[in-house]
Amino acid sequence: MSKVPTELTRTWHLTAAGCNAQSRLPLPTLAQRVIELATDHANAIGVGYSRLILDGNAWVLSRLSIELSRFPAMHEDYSLTTWIEGFNRHFSARNFELRSGGADGEVIGYIRSVWVAINIESRRPADLSSIAHLATTVSERRCPIEPQPKLRMPADNGSAVVTEGVFRATDIDFNRHVNTIRYIDLILNNTPLDVYDNHRIARFDIAFSHEATFGEHWRAATVEEPALTFSTAVTDGADRTFCSARMIMK
Amino acid sequence: MSKVPTELTRTWHLTAAGCNAQSRLPLPTLAQRVIELATDHANAIGVGYSRLILDGNAWVLSRLSIELSRFPAMHEDYSLTTWIEGFNRHFSARNFELRSGGADGEVIGYIRSVWVAINIESRRPADLSSIAHLATTVSERRCPIEPQPKLRMPADNGSAVVTEGVFRATDIDFNRHVNTIRYIDLILNNTPLDVYDNHRIARFDIAFSHEATFGEHWRAATVEEPALTFSTAVTDGADRTFCSARMIMK
Repeated sequence: MSKVPTELTRTWHLTAAGCNAQSRLPLPTLAQRVIELATDHANAIGVGYSRLILDGNAWVLSRLSIELSRFPAMHEDYSLTTWIEGFNRHFSARNFELRSGGADGEVIGYIRSVWVAINIESRRPADLSSIAHLATTVSERRCPIEPQPKLRMPADNGSAVVTEGVFRATDIDFNRHVNTIRYIDLILNNTPLDVYDNHRIARFDIAFSHEATFGEHWRAATVEEPALTFSTAVTDGADRTFCSARMIMK
Repeated sequence: MSKVPTELTRTWHLTAAGCNAQSRLPLPTLAQRVIELATDHANAIGVGYSRLILDGNAWVLSRLSIELSRFPAMHEDYSLTTWIEGFNRHFSARNFELRSGGADGEVIGYIRSVWVAINIESRRPADLSSIAHLATTVSERRCPIEPQPKLRMPADNGSAVVTEGVFRATDIDFNRHVNTIRYIDLILNNTPLDVYDNHRIARFDIAFSHEATFGEHWRAATVEEPALTFSTAVTDGADRTFCSARMIMK
């Protein structure tokens, strides 16, 4: 049996066109890169989409935590390295290291992600026993950032920012559910531009609960408590929570 | 003087996570790749951001026309090759060829783009005489798709789809204006998901008029006339048009 690669690294260049209003790598783009690299590494070690679908299963991102000392700047190279920290019958934990200036550059952040395998018909958690060889790919490498805490909405102190809308065609991914990046957009967009101009996102946590589909109503409510800590719940406006997030700025 | 590359090609892999609801390359992503490759080629031939800014100028995308026989599918490689068709004192015309299966694969589409140089302070057209050496990079290669026609909104036949909103933090690019991709999202989102499930975008044209900024109100109105031809105007809800588009589906 050939040895499977326990790590995968990829490098990107940040063009002007790829920057946000602060001339930095946008957080939604970073999340997209994380998901792409996770997908590619899962494929490389034989536990990707094409393997899981044999059992009628698919990976779904359950939690994502991003902690950065700074975001890559315009015209910089940046790299992500991913490895698996652990897995059990129902989920796998995958970490990432972010470097600026390419794969040998300065470490500027870490990312933790938790992936759940679900049955694509029932949308219920699947049993990963059939890919127990995933255990051979678990790395000894540690991730220095804290695991994601339980995300709780603080009491609405009267200053909650609320936006509402409907999920539309470009919000939908190949699973026919709303894609992760779109949720992150909605969450970031409840904080005005000048906050991003004057502060940086030091930590971003998001946890996914229920999957939304095309045409569903969404409601995003954000409370800043304490100062520069923004907690957001994205719901259907009634009793279903699609995702919860916490953004800490400095 | 070293020879400048008259063409630039880049290849990408379409991961599952990068797909739209039809398990294809999303049109907004294709437009993003086009803009990135244009930026990189402009840098490579010495007429990029860092050169133009010496004169206080910057490139702004004015028109984009995309015509495809099909969109790249999940797990396919796809490549774009760009070249300059012509330029004068005020704008440059840049084309792209899209191949599936990588740089040697089947040609599945062409893209035309027109870029205007503007003064970044006045936002008025700039004079490109100082980079007249751009002429040496004009290619003999032709682009087989029609140039963009004048985009006109058909009379509202009573079935116009109208959405409205406000431009928010993640909609803003490094120029501090609303980014091209966000406009394309708004335009595509005025057509429901089942239309994309049952038809494909054969041609997409977009022309940019006025630049929108953070916090501005937007109104997107789409009329389908004739059947499967969708014309959209994105305005401020009053007298300013941000962009106009036409999408022909088959």
